[in-house]
Amino acid sequence: MISVSDARAALLALVDPLASETVPLAQSAGRVLADPVSARRDQPPFSASAMDGYAVNATEVELHAMFKVIGEAAAGHGFDGKVGAGQAVRIFTGAPVPEGADFVVIQEDVDRKGNLITILDEPGANSNIRPKGGDFAIGDTVSAPRTLTPADVALLASMNIAQVPVARRPVVAVMSTGDELVMPGETPGPDQIIASNSFGLKAMCEAAGAEVRMLPIAQDTVQSLTTAFELAKGADLVVTIGGASVGDHDLVGDVAVSLGMERSFYKVAMRPGKPLMAGRMGDMAMVGLPGNPVSSMVCGQIFLLPMIRKMLGLSAEQPPLQSARLIAPLAKNGPREHYMRAQVTADGIRAFESQDSSLLTVLADANALLVRPPHDDALEAGALVQFLPI
Amino acid sequence: MISVSDARAALLALVDPLASETVPLAQSAGRVLADPVSARRDQPPFSASAMDGYAVNATEVELHAMFKVIGEAAAGHGFDGKVGAGQAVRIFTGAPVPEGADFVVIQEDVDRKGNLITILDEPGANSNIRPKGGDFAIGDTVSAPRTLTPADVALLASMNIAQVPVARRPVVAVMSTGDELVMPGETPGPDQIIASNSFGLKAMCEAAGAEVRMLPIAQDTVQSLTTAFELAKGADLVVTIGGASVGDHDLVGDVAVSLGMERSFYKVAMRPGKPLMAGRMGDMAMVGLPGNPVSSMVCGQIFLLPMIRKMLGLSAEQPPLQSARLIAPLAKNGPREHYMRAQVTADGIRAFESQDSSLLTVLADANALLVRPPHDDALEAGALVQFLPI
Repeated sequence: MISVSDARAALLALVDPLASETVPLAQSAGRVLADPVSARRDQPPFSASAMDGYAVNATEVELHAMFKVIGEAAAGHGFDGKVGAGQAVRIFTGAPVPEGADFVVIQEDVDRKGNLITILDEPGANSNIRPKGGDFAIGDTVSAPRTLTPADVALLASMNIAQVPVARRPVVAVMSTGDELVMPGETPGPDQIIASNSFGLKAMCEAAGAEVRMLPIAQDTVQSLTTAFELAKGADLVVTIGGASVGDHDLVGDVAVSLGMERSFYKVAMRPGKPLMAGRMGDMAMVGLPGNPVSSMVCGQIFLLPMIRKMLGLSAEQPPLQSARLIAPLAKNGPREHYMRAQVTADGIRAFESQDSSLLTVLADANALLVRPPHDDALEAGALVQFLPI
Repeated sequence: MISVSDARAALLALVDPLASETVPLAQSAGRVLADPVSARRDQPPFSASAMDGYAVNATEVELHAMFKVIGEAAAGHGFDGKVGAGQAVRIFTGAPVPEGADFVVIQEDVDRKGNLITILDEPGANSNIRPKGGDFAIGDTVSAPRTLTPADVALLASMNIAQVPVARRPVVAVMSTGDELVMPGETPGPDQIIASNSFGLKAMCEAAGAEVRMLPIAQDTVQSLTTAFELAKGADLVVTIGGASVGDHDLVGDVAVSLGMERSFYKVAMRPGKPLMAGRMGDMAMVGLPGNPVSSMVCGQIFLLPMIRKMLGLSAEQPPLQSARLIAPLAKNGPREHYMRAQVTADGIRAFESQDSSLLTVLADANALLVRPPHDDALEAGALVQFLPI
């Protein structure tokens, strides 16, 4: 058996960062910026008023000073002339500060009669002017890679980046296998169940930025599996669910090998999800996940998501584990790293009573995987443990 | 001036939870389940083997016991007969346990010669059988409302819920206003800047589950604003950006009132983002945000997201604030609740030096809003403060 981190390293070696593509800014949120982008302009592009008021020369600003208003500067419509001695220009937030002025007296501090204003309140030391380029200057860059947040999108807009270079979404083909499976909405036979893992993994991979191609359910025959693998062609990664163990009916590996896969098989020292199959089929990486619902979802979290992050050009490191105190004691752990379904609250963390890898109700109620190292001793309530939020 | 929480309550009173709609399971991830759904079947639908092995009668299981293999049960293909005394059925993971058997001896524990097996290793007490209905039974429900996670989607699939009742996405129309604005990709005049807030707010509202309609930029004229409001019709919420203050050029409120809005104007005791306009225009809620980029994004976070959550049927409560220790001291706060752009790391939290509400570079580098109550005293490094992750 190999460790979880060795297995993850082996799987990550199967994929590479993908090429970039260009998308319109309005579609870029949540995508991964592939290359640094540079501002096409200064922001503000001119010294701009931060307030509604009157633009004057700072040396003339004092209590009771009077000015003659000679024009107006609004956002989008500057004042063309120059502000001379004793003169002021009515100015609004965002308007360019006119030549000759370097101070904005806010409107609440003046009294206006016709074209004359008088400063009646102490105007303070703040010029109320945002200097040209104070946010960013032409050529300032936004670094890559980064997953673009709403604030990043606003920043790119203001830099006038209308087309954004982002990593292409990895195409992940997901194949359920097994004669026992039918699709949701169908009527299963007496010995059958509904395919569920593929829908859960689709949602998980899409949330991580992948484009998911759902393959038809493959029956436990060479022909059916071959057809499904054909339909995966062109994907960056094909994920099979079930049939990856060593039982007599586990044909997935044999068929993949017949289609050119160099097969690696890992017995990973982890619970749930011991058996993993992996390899490359031409341009495509292949990962075979166990068929138990919870095993496939946990393996998706621990193995597939880092592969997707690597293809997107992001760090493939698992996000750092968080810590919490046990609400209830835990028995000694066995030889495998255990990802226990658990619930974290303000009071601490509690592992669910039943850790059977078939229980989707338990997984759906969990908001964390409590990670126990191999051979971890029994733990009392109050012990500090590590978990991965899910 | 009113408090942030009073302003939020006033805005929330403008919207109601929306009706539900039905989407295919494969498109349900991230949507909000609108009504509880009930399992259409038991899972497992029969007592199922948890391992590959041999199904026998538990009373006969002991070291060195021998059995005659009389048939096979595979996933999807059960064994039709009954297991009698001294008999075993070859069984695979997920297969129905045949009548007469109530124990699965795992294959690693037996030796097989032709049709005879002998138990060679201590088989233990675990029957390796998953009882019928052990995950869920017909009629067991998944509660609503909840934002559907990948694990929820897998659970709904396995319950055979092919069509999922979810809250309709709120339609949010976003309108930038101001003669100074041009769209990204256009060439601004010398006094102009690029519209950025609308793109940031679009990304923010979409991530929260809304469908966003981008309206054309409205110029500072009655005609242009009227046209833009016409294009908002049918939305659940129209958000204007800029022109909501009291300057001479702030026409947005006047035009909205002429179109039937009952206008409320709030001076909110908050930084950034003091002025807020709000009201109802027929079936549509209307919120006017300030035009400074950071103000509009912070107000989006503090006011628009709770409105969207309420329309989706979720709790409109702000998620609880988190705590961290200051890395650097902070000066005394003024009379307004201050949402300081800040960065949280493992070492603590640090507010950015410049808190000017025009600086998108600072907002894009922030991962938290450090929340300071009105009149908060000066704080030393090491003091515990509260923040909202962004």
